[in-house]
This record gives sequence, C-alpha cells and structure tokens, in this order.
Amino acid sequence: MGGDHGPRVTLAACRAFLERHPEASLLLVGAPDALAGFAAHPRARIVPASEVVGMDDPIEIALRKKKDSSMRVAIQQVKDGAAQAAISAGNTGALMAISKLILRMGANLERPAIVASWPTMQGVSAVLDVGANVESDAKQLIEFAIMGAAFHHAVHGSERPTVGLLNVGSEDQKGHEEVREAHAILKDTKLDFDYRGFVEGTDIAKGTVDVVVTDGFTGNVALKTAEGLARFFGAEIKATLTSGPLAMLGAVIASGALKKMRRRLDPGRVNGGPLLGLNGIVVKSHGGADALGYASAIRVAVDLARSDFSAEIDRNLKRLTETGLNAGAQEEGAGGVSGAEGQGASE
Amino acid sequence: MGGDHGPRVTLAACRAFLERHPEASLLLVGAPDALAGFAAHPRARIVPASEVVGMDDPIEIALRKKKDSSMRVAIQQVKDGAAQAAISAGNTGALMAISKLILRMGANLERPAIVASWPTMQGVSAVLDVGANVESDAKQLIEFAIMGAAFHHAVHGSERPTVGLLNVGSEDQKGHEEVREAHAILKDTKLDFDYRGFVEGTDIAKGTVDVVVTDGFTGNVALKTAEGLARFFGAEIKATLTSGPLAMLGAVIASGALKKMRRRLDPGRVNGGPLLGLNGIVVKSHGGADALGYASAIRVAVDLARSDFSAEIDRNLKRLTETGLNAGAQEEGAGGVSGAEGQGASE
Repeated sequence: MGGDHGPRVTLAACRAFLERHPEASLLLVGAPDALAGFAAHPRARIVPASEVVGMDDPIEIALRKKKDSSMRVAIQQVKDGAAQAAISAGNTGALMAISKLILRMGANLERPAIVASWPTMQGVSAVLDVGANVESDAKQLIEFAIMGAAFHHAVHGSERPTVGLLNVGSEDQKGHEEVREAHAILKDTKLDFDYRGFVEGTDIAKGTVDVVVTDGFTGNVALKTAEGLARFFGAEIKATLTSGPLAMLGAVIASGALKKMRRRLDPGRVNGGPLLGLNGIVVKSHGGADALGYASAIRVAVDLARSDFSAEIDRNLKRLTETGLNAGAQEEGAGGVSGAEGQGASE
Repeated sequence: MGGDHGPRVTLAACRAFLERHPEASLLLVGAPDALAGFAAHPRARIVPASEVVGMDDPIEIALRKKKDSSMRVAIQQVKDGAAQAAISAGNTGALMAISKLILRMGANLERPAIVASWPTMQGVSAVLDVGANVESDAKQLIEFAIMGAAFHHAVHGSERPTVGLLNVGSEDQKGHEEVREAHAILKDTKLDFDYRGFVEGTDIAKGTVDVVVTDGFTGNVALKTAEGLARFFGAEIKATLTSGPLAMLGAVIASGALKKMRRRLDPGRVNGGPLLGLNGIVVKSHGGADALGYASAIRVAVDLARSDFSAEIDRNLKRLTETGLNAGAQEEGAGGVSGAEGQGASE
C-alpha cells in the first residue's frame, strides 16, 4: 500500500512499468478501493488484503496480528508461485520478518542480507548487508559476498564481479576476527567472482570493487552516514548558489549541468534493495521513493527474476562446501523468524 | 618530521603558529639539519632525533627498533613535562602504540580513542572512536562518551555537550548488546553532558548531537565512507561545472560562493584528531594536511592543554564509579601496549 506517500506513488510507478514492459503483468495487493483504477487493466490483477502494516508497527504486531496485511499477502503470492517477486515500500523490519517466516531461508544459507545499490565514480556498486543483521560472523560475511556478487551480475550486469571486504585497513592483520577469518577463506576459495581483499570506506564511492561486503551494523551506519552527507551537500550547494546575485546568476546559467549532476548522485536512481538469501525474491523500495524510484525497484525485481541468481548462489555455496567450510549451515538458519529482528535496522 | 609532505608543510605551519601565538613556544623534534631554519627563533627549540617512523613501518619496528624516532622523542617530551602536548602527522598506528607505551592510559580509563572533528549542518561534531580500536564493549563506549564530551567542550566550546550513541535505529531494543548496554547505563547516570540516546548515520552530518559515540571499526568506516563521498562530490561538481561553455560561464560567475562552500565542507578546516584517554595530550594531524590544516592540529593541542579536559573526565568517571559501573577498570588498561594495535585502522 505504498511507503511514505501511500498508493499514489506506487500506482503511478506500476502504470509506467506496465506500459514499458508489455510482456509483464502485475498483482496489486491491498485495499480493492485504493486499487480500483487497475480493475480493468488486462495485465493487472487485484489481490485483496484487508490490513496494512504501519511504518511504526512493532514486528510482533506485523507478524502475529495482521495476518491479512498487504505485505504478507504479497509475499504469500511469491510462496504460492502466483508471483515471481514481491516489491514493498513499507516497514523494513516487518518485511524482513514476514519474508523469513513465509519464504524461509534458501538452502544452505544462514542469514538474509539487504543490499544497497550505491552510485560510485565507476558506476554502481552493491553494498551488503545494510541492515538485516546487527552482527555477522565469518561464514555469514562469505555468504554475503556470494549473494552480492550474484546480485551485481544479475542486476548491474558485471560479467565477473569484483568483491571486497570492508575493513579499517588493507593489510591481512587489520580488523576484528570475523573479517580476518572471512578474508582468509575468500582468498583461498575459487568462486564465480574476483575477490580483491580488504577495502576501506573511501573505496565505496571510488567504486574500487563491484561488491562491498560488511556486517549489517557497519553497512547500515555507512549507508546512512552517506545519505546524511549527501543531503548536507545538497543543502550547501543550494545555499551557496542562492547566496547572492552573482552566485544566483551563475547557478541559473549552469542549471542544466547541475540538474544532471543531482540526477547522477541521486540514490533514488538506483532504488530497490532486495532481501537476499530467501526462497523467493522480495525487493524493498525506499519508503520515501517517488514513482521513478519505485519503478526502479520493480525493475530490480524483474532483473533478479529473469537471472540465474539462485543457481549462481547454489553453485558457489557448493564450492565452499567442497572446501569444508559450509558444513552444517542449514541447522541454525532454517528456523525462520527468531527474536533478533527487533534489533535490526529501521529504514 | 611531517606526514606525507615532509617537514616543509609542518614547518610552515609552526612558523605561522608562533607568529599568531606570541605567548606559546614550540619544541621541534627531528633531524637538526631539516629544522635549522628555527635555530635562531627565540620561542623555538630544536630537540634532535636521529630516526623517523615511516608511514608504512610495522608497529613493532616503530616500537622496538626506532627508539630515537622523532615521534617517540616528541612523546617523551610530554612524558617528561618539557612539552604540554605532542603533534604528529605520521603513522597513526605507530603514534598510538608509542603514546600508550610511554604515556600510559589515564587513571581508570581502559582504552584510548581517536576523535574526529566532523563538519555538520550545525557546526562541528566530535565523532569517536574512529580507529584506535576494532571492538568496544559497553564500558569503553561510555568512556568514549565522557572523553568526547570533554573534548567538544574544550575544543569546540559547547557549554554542555549533547551526546548520542550511534546505532541502526532509535528504539531501545535496536542494535547489538554492547550499544544497548551502554545506552541503558548512560540513560541512568547523571554526567556533565546531555545524553540524547541513539542516533543514526544520517544524524552525523545533520549535527543532531555534539558528540557521536561508536566503536572504532564502525567509526573508521563511517569517517572514510564520508571522506570518499566528499571526494566524489568534489569531482562531480568540478566535472559538472566544466562540462560545457554555459556551465563553465556559470561556474566562473559563481566561483566566489563555490570556493566558500568548499572551504566550509573541507575536513582540513577542522584537522587535528587527538588520541584521547592517555596521560598527556597527543594530536594526530591528517598525513595529507597542508600548512593550514597542520596549524589547526596545533591549535587543537593548545585548546586541550589550556582546558580542564582531564579534570572533567575524572569527575565523570567518578560519578560512574559511584553508580557501581567503573570498578576495576584500571586492572586491564594500565598494561600499556598490547598486541592488538596491529589490527587497528590505518590512516
């Protein structure tokens, strides 16, 4: 039912998506009244849901009380095979919890991850986890590397993604035990991507690697720090270029170029953060995304659904198992929703 | 002997500092030949040191082999009471290790922290730890809060600093155990600052609080992510405003305002990251700082030396002890240098 702006934005995005993709069809899940505009559309079907998960709803409420929420019904469509992917601009924690409960973790994967597509000097990098977890051990970091590489390949088109592990320095002995252990294993295992070792915070915007792997706490803080700084820059540029008649004249003259720049740096341009690691595709749109941003999230879901994303993950996990690391992964992971979600990141 | 640019930059900064502060005097530590320009200065004294710690020297070499390094001799001046503070633009890991070995931790403090002065929409916030440690427990986070508040008060002049704990959400149950435990204690202890609870990455640039507290891994990644993004923005602005004749004309007309903006956002403007928690003042300048930046690091050292920084920390630690938390802190901390430094952040 559509994030911060309600169905208005998401429905505009859905309409634009259907126009641009004559081969695709959409299930629109929610209050039939709000979706009535699509009742006659030949490639849209309305799936009624009587409840809505609020942006501030505790996860327990979303999970145990609102069993007919649009979010839950949408994810159920994926589980039942009626849809190939679910897209939501709603409450991240609830989306994660409901997705884990209904879809369960993928075979041999321990923990899900939320991946962010980050504009860089080189293009777009995938950064994960940015908030599904608050702590990650070495094995989980390696899973993130595998999932992130498969995601970048599927959605951003890199042939053989380069992958780096986020750390506070580039030497082997830097960082805490988890990153050093993950580093040692990634260095010594042949996988479908090009592991480049440790990278630092400065490397993210530089685009040093296609995939930046980190735990959900650090990734969430890094992403939000960057978002905050981007807003600060935006405000400063605006203030600067309206600070006097000369600056304003300059800004008017350069306005075309400045607009282009803002578009290039706009996180909404690459909106759509999939929840990786589940048995099914779920894509989180930024709650504040506009129609263009929400359409970009739908496109990410389509790209993932069309790719051999899951097969690629399976193949790499198998190689890990052959090196002896992955044994016993499923034991802990398959239990679905644990109490830990409440500690995860808010959007 | 002066960071990436060698003594040229640091000596220019020293000369400017002495001119602007007729009451201050400097000890210049290093190869006498390189410092000869100051031989006749009435308020400068040359302290000879025969060795230099290289930017890439392993900590063991800096610590055990180069016992007559300019870095070590400078810190020894503080220990001996000949200087009130030491300033260095050299190897961060070595500076931290030598400082801990020679000055030791302050009474009842467990771990040192490096603090960054971060330009925000409101002014300047202190963010710590940005790289002295790779992991921090609740007690260490609380120490960082105390030290950061005393620093902000001494150097950035806030009367009663506001302090926030960096997390992935603002609700009490968010985040990992360490931040939740530190949060619970800070909420319930009356200290010389205004604890505002959890803050998120977006709050840093917004300037929501004067002091942002986090572990050294997260803080280092956040700082470097921001530095990388700032460079990306700088490059984009330059590329945008030289992208065509119209944009160039606009840029020329607005150049005064743009220059002012760049100065405001420049991290060098607030250069100077003290190593907090030691028995003595040591300030790390950015290795790549220019003379203006290095002079700013000297000013930070002066502000700290003139303040009641240490007394403020002691007072707050005492209040913590009264609430029962701080008992036994010294046992582990006083041992000086442990093997853990090698895992810390590089600059």
